[in-house]
Amino acid sequence: MDITIVKVGGAVVEDPAQLATLLEGFKKIEGAKILVHGGGRRATKVAAALGIESKMVGGRRITDADMLEVVTMVYGGLVNKNIVAQLQAIGVDAIGLTGADMNVIRSHRRPVKDGIDFGFVGDVDTVDAARLHTLIDAQLTPVLAPLTFDGAGTMLNTNADTIASETARALAKADNVTLVYCFEKPGVLANPDDDNSVIPTITRSLFQRLTADGTISGGMLPKIENALAAVEAGVKKVVITKADCLGTNNSGTTISL
Amino acid sequence: MDITIVKVGGAVVEDPAQLATLLEGFKKIEGAKILVHGGGRRATKVAAALGIESKMVGGRRITDADMLEVVTMVYGGLVNKNIVAQLQAIGVDAIGLTGADMNVIRSHRRPVKDGIDFGFVGDVDTVDAARLHTLIDAQLTPVLAPLTFDGAGTMLNTNADTIASETARALAKADNVTLVYCFEKPGVLANPDDDNSVIPTITRSLFQRLTADGTISGGMLPKIENALAAVEAGVKKVVITKADCLGTNNSGTTISL
Repeated sequence: MDITIVKVGGAVVEDPAQLATLLEGFKKIEGAKILVHGGGRRATKVAAALGIESKMVGGRRITDADMLEVVTMVYGGLVNKNIVAQLQAIGVDAIGLTGADMNVIRSHRRPVKDGIDFGFVGDVDTVDAARLHTLIDAQLTPVLAPLTFDGAGTMLNTNADTIASETARALAKADNVTLVYCFEKPGVLANPDDDNSVIPTITRSLFQRLTADGTISGGMLPKIENALAAVEAGVKKVVITKADCLGTNNSGTTISL
Repeated sequence: MDITIVKVGGAVVEDPAQLATLLEGFKKIEGAKILVHGGGRRATKVAAALGIESKMVGGRRITDADMLEVVTMVYGGLVNKNIVAQLQAIGVDAIGLTGADMNVIRSHRRPVKDGIDFGFVGDVDTVDAARLHTLIDAQLTPVLAPLTFDGAGTMLNTNADTIASETARALAKADNVTLVYCFEKPGVLANPDDDNSVIPTITRSLFQRLTADGTISGGMLPKIENALAAVEAGVKKVVITKADCLGTNNSGTTISL
């Protein structure tokens, strides 16, 4: 079966106009599909309103017990249900999930390393492709929040990019999976100041050259590393594109073998 | 098919020890089952921490736009996912839902009446029994948050007792449904100060007598009215019992035709 997995970050999800455009594009994607969302900015805002400070290390949130409650509320409740409601309103039969629902994404708490304890942050062990198929085969569209489950009663906070790539890999064992990362730029740019400098295709060898010469750096590095790992694990292709290009054309950067 | 629907209120759900006992009892129920939960006390606490005042009229929450965000976070995220995670940890294959997920519980915003505008509060129009069966038939256990959906993109706040009875009625068209309300008392009491005075069975005619003589009053009135309406609409029986009696015996008060 052809399945498209779209990952969209907090900046788009938390802007009503951008979200509406994204979801209209998502609706146009034919066949089975899954949406994976972030929501970190909203979590930071809600935490601040509750007097809880957000601590980040290397772009990742330190998740203590209070922050775990915040992300469970914001990702699993506010953001996820808002997206599901907007999708249902335009005729997409969405169903929201965290990793605990149907035990669908199992993880373990990240061990303390180099003195850094991320707290209730989960590294993914397994994504249950069969359970996702229970929903997909019933013509439902799963909407995944960036929360996983330790199997023992505790939710864990997990990066949405990782959820998207792990879900893509798990489904790729039996399905033709396309993984799309929605992004604020039209693709991976050769020149970060020029939106017309999209690199159309990136392979492992080109990635190594572009990393070595500094063309690709910063937050784009783990994104492409994740994408390459996904295609090397059997995902048909990974596309990095602008949120408002979804469903309209095949612009953006394609990561392939 | 035999389906048991259990409704549990905020007081039990928000106490970890009571919740653990309830869920162990729920696990013991044989056959298909659905859990419906409240969470109002937690919503009131989170709202207060965010500086949002909770306003109640006749025991029902006035839900303005800010409060809608709070209940969406707390009911759909924090409480629902906590219950799902606890159930999964003891081997019940739970999946959390609001009315927007799978478009499963449609409602309309309650009209202003007698000068009272409840805001984003929904009165239920339809519960999609076929969609619930998609999950039940796949051996999943739905866990329903007290949030419904207006079909146009907005979540609405709906009393959990109502969700339970409307779900029971919808399923009763094709299934043998037992509806269980978990309660802080062992059943409906003839003498509110005596836990040994449980009234074993209540019919419509007995209810009228007990209401007229004042034996039943206050918050128990709408609960039994809802229960009678459910059995009159085809639900096999409604049981009002203590949360920690679940799955162990048939104590409590049975409401029947």
